[in-house]
Amino acid sequence: MRLEEYIQDSQTLVNKRINEYINKKESACKLIKDAMLYSINCGGKRIRPTLMFLTYEFLSTGKKTDIVDAAAAIEMVHTYSLIHDDLPAMDNDDLRRGKPTNHKVFGDGVAVLAGDGLLTDAFHIISSSKKINEEKKGMVIEILSRRAGSSGMVSGQTIDLVSEGTLLKKNSKKELAEQLDYIHQHKTADMIMAACEIGCILADKEKDLRSISDFAQKIGFAFQIADDILDVIGDKKKIGKNGSDKKNNKLTYVSFYGIEKSKELEEKLLSESLKILDMLDGRDEHKKLMKEMAYLLIGRDR
Amino acid sequence: MRLEEYIQDSQTLVNKRINEYINKKESACKLIKDAMLYSINCGGKRIRPTLMFLTYEFLSTGKKTDIVDAAAAIEMVHTYSLIHDDLPAMDNDDLRRGKPTNHKVFGDGVAVLAGDGLLTDAFHIISSSKKINEEKKGMVIEILSRRAGSSGMVSGQTIDLVSEGTLLKKNSKKELAEQLDYIHQHKTADMIMAACEIGCILADKEKDLRSISDFAQKIGFAFQIADDILDVIGDKKKIGKNGSDKKNNKLTYVSFYGIEKSKELEEKLLSESLKILDMLDGRDEHKKLMKEMAYLLIGRDR
Repeated sequence: MRLEEYIQDSQTLVNKRINEYINKKESACKLIKDAMLYSINCGGKRIRPTLMFLTYEFLSTGKKTDIVDAAAAIEMVHTYSLIHDDLPAMDNDDLRRGKPTNHKVFGDGVAVLAGDGLLTDAFHIISSSKKINEEKKGMVIEILSRRAGSSGMVSGQTIDLVSEGTLLKKNSKKELAEQLDYIHQHKTADMIMAACEIGCILADKEKDLRSISDFAQKIGFAFQIADDILDVIGDKKKIGKNGSDKKNNKLTYVSFYGIEKSKELEEKLLSESLKILDMLDGRDEHKKLMKEMAYLLIGRDR
Repeated sequence: MRLEEYIQDSQTLVNKRINEYINKKESACKLIKDAMLYSINCGGKRIRPTLMFLTYEFLSTGKKTDIVDAAAAIEMVHTYSLIHDDLPAMDNDDLRRGKPTNHKVFGDGVAVLAGDGLLTDAFHIISSSKKINEEKKGMVIEILSRRAGSSGMVSGQTIDLVSEGTLLKKNSKKELAEQLDYIHQHKTADMIMAACEIGCILADKEKDLRSISDFAQKIGFAFQIADDILDVIGDKKKIGKNGSDKKNNKLTYVSFYGIEKSKELEEKLLSESLKILDMLDGRDEHKKLMKEMAYLLIGRDR
C-alpha cells in the first residue's frame, strides 16, 4: 500500500467516526455541534490518527477500525487546541487551513465552548467505546490527558504564548535554547508521542513503549522545526495561515538558530528516528510506511 | 456529625489533594500551575465533591479518602468552567467569590489555558489514580465527560451565552420555558448529577443509579433556581459577583416566572428530592446529612 492511500484511508475513517459521534448526540445543542464540526471538517492531514494507526498496525495483527475511537479522540484534542490557539486572546489568527477560524465564524464565546466540547468529548469517545477493552481505557486516557494537559501541551502553549518578544529581551543563549526545546517538546512532540504511545499500548506491546516514545519524540521535534521553517519560507496560500509566528516576534527554531542550522537538526532527528524503527520488530509493510511518514512530516510541501 | 463539619472536612481533603497533584507536576510550567491553583484556592464551597462523598458514604461502608481523586476531578472540571465562563468572550466578569477573576490576574490567554489544563488534568487525576479500580475508571470518566461535554454542561453554557437578550425577542412562552429548562439542566444539574452518580458507581450500587440521578437532578434544578433568586435579591458582597445575569438581560427563572413562582418551584423540587432519598437504603447518618445538604443548597445565605 502506498502511504498516500494509507493517509487517505485514515482520514476517511476518522472523519466519518467523529462526524457520526457528534451528530448522534441528542442532548447537545445544534449550535455547539455545528461549531465543533466546522473545525473538524475544515481539512487537516490527520497526522496524529495516521501515526496511531500505523504504530498499532506495525506492532499488532489488528486493523485500523479496532482503534478508531482512540484515533478520533486524539484528532478531537488536536482540533480543540487549534480552536483555542487561534482565539484573539492567544494567537489571534483569522485563517486556519485557508478558511476563517472558528471564532471568526461563531464568535469568541462559542469558539471557547467548541474547544471545551471537543476536548471533553475526546475522553467520552474513548470511555464509552465498545471497541476498547475496559482495562485499556484507563491507560489510553492516562497517556492522552498527561500529554495534552498541564504536564504537556497546555504548558507548551503557555510558554509559547508568553515567549512573544522574548528574542528582544536579554535572556542568555542557554535560557533561550532551553525555552525553545520546552515549547517544541510540549506544544508539538507531546501529542505526536501520545498518538504513537496509544497505538503501542492498544497493540499490547508495552515492551516497545520506550522505543516508540523516542521515535515519536524525534519526529515530533523534526515536524515542529519543519513547521517553523515553512512559516518563514512557505507562502501564505500553501499553509493557509498568515505566518503569525513571525509577525508576533516569537521564539522559533528559525529565529533562534537560523534556517541552515534548523535544517541540519531536522535531518539529524529524522535519521535517528529511522534507526529506532529499524530496531523494532513488526509488520514490514507498516515499518516502511512509518519511515515514509517520517519523511513526509519533515519534507511536506517542499 | 454535623453537616458543617462534613463540608469542612470535604473541602480540606479536596483542596489538599488538588494542590498536591498540581504542585507535584514536574514538567508543567510554573505560570500555568500558578494560574490553575489561583482559581482552585480562591474559595468555593466544594458542593460537588461534598455530594460525591455523601452519596458514596451513604451507599457504601467506605470513607471519603477512597474516592478523593474522583472528588478532586469534579471540582477541577467545575473550576475550569468558572474560569472560561468569566472570560470577556463569555460573561465578562471581573470578580468571582469576591476576588479578581483568573483572566484579570493572568490575562485572557493564560486563563483560557488554565481552564484547559484543569479540564484535561481532571481526566488525568482519575486515570492515574491508585485508589480507583481499573474497571471503574472508564465508567467514572464516561459519566464525567458526558455530563461536562457537549451533551451536557458545554451545551448549557452555549445556550446560556446566546440567550442574552432572549426575553426581548418574540419567542413563545413555551419556547422560552423549554430553553430555560435546557439551560438549567445542562449548565447546573448535569454536574450535580455527575457528582452523585460517580459516588453511586464507586459505592458499587449501580442498582440505585436511577434514583440517585433523579435526586441529583431535582436538587440541581432547585440549586440553580436559588442562584437565580440570589442574583436578584442577594447583595453583591454576599455572592462575590456583580449580578451579571441581570445586567446582561439573560433568561433566568426569576426573569421568566417571577420570584414567588420560582420559590414555589424550588420548594416542590426539594420535597420531591427528599422523598427519593427516603426510598433508598444506606447509612442513616449520611442520609440525614444528604437531606441537610439539599436544604443548604436551596436555602444558602437566606
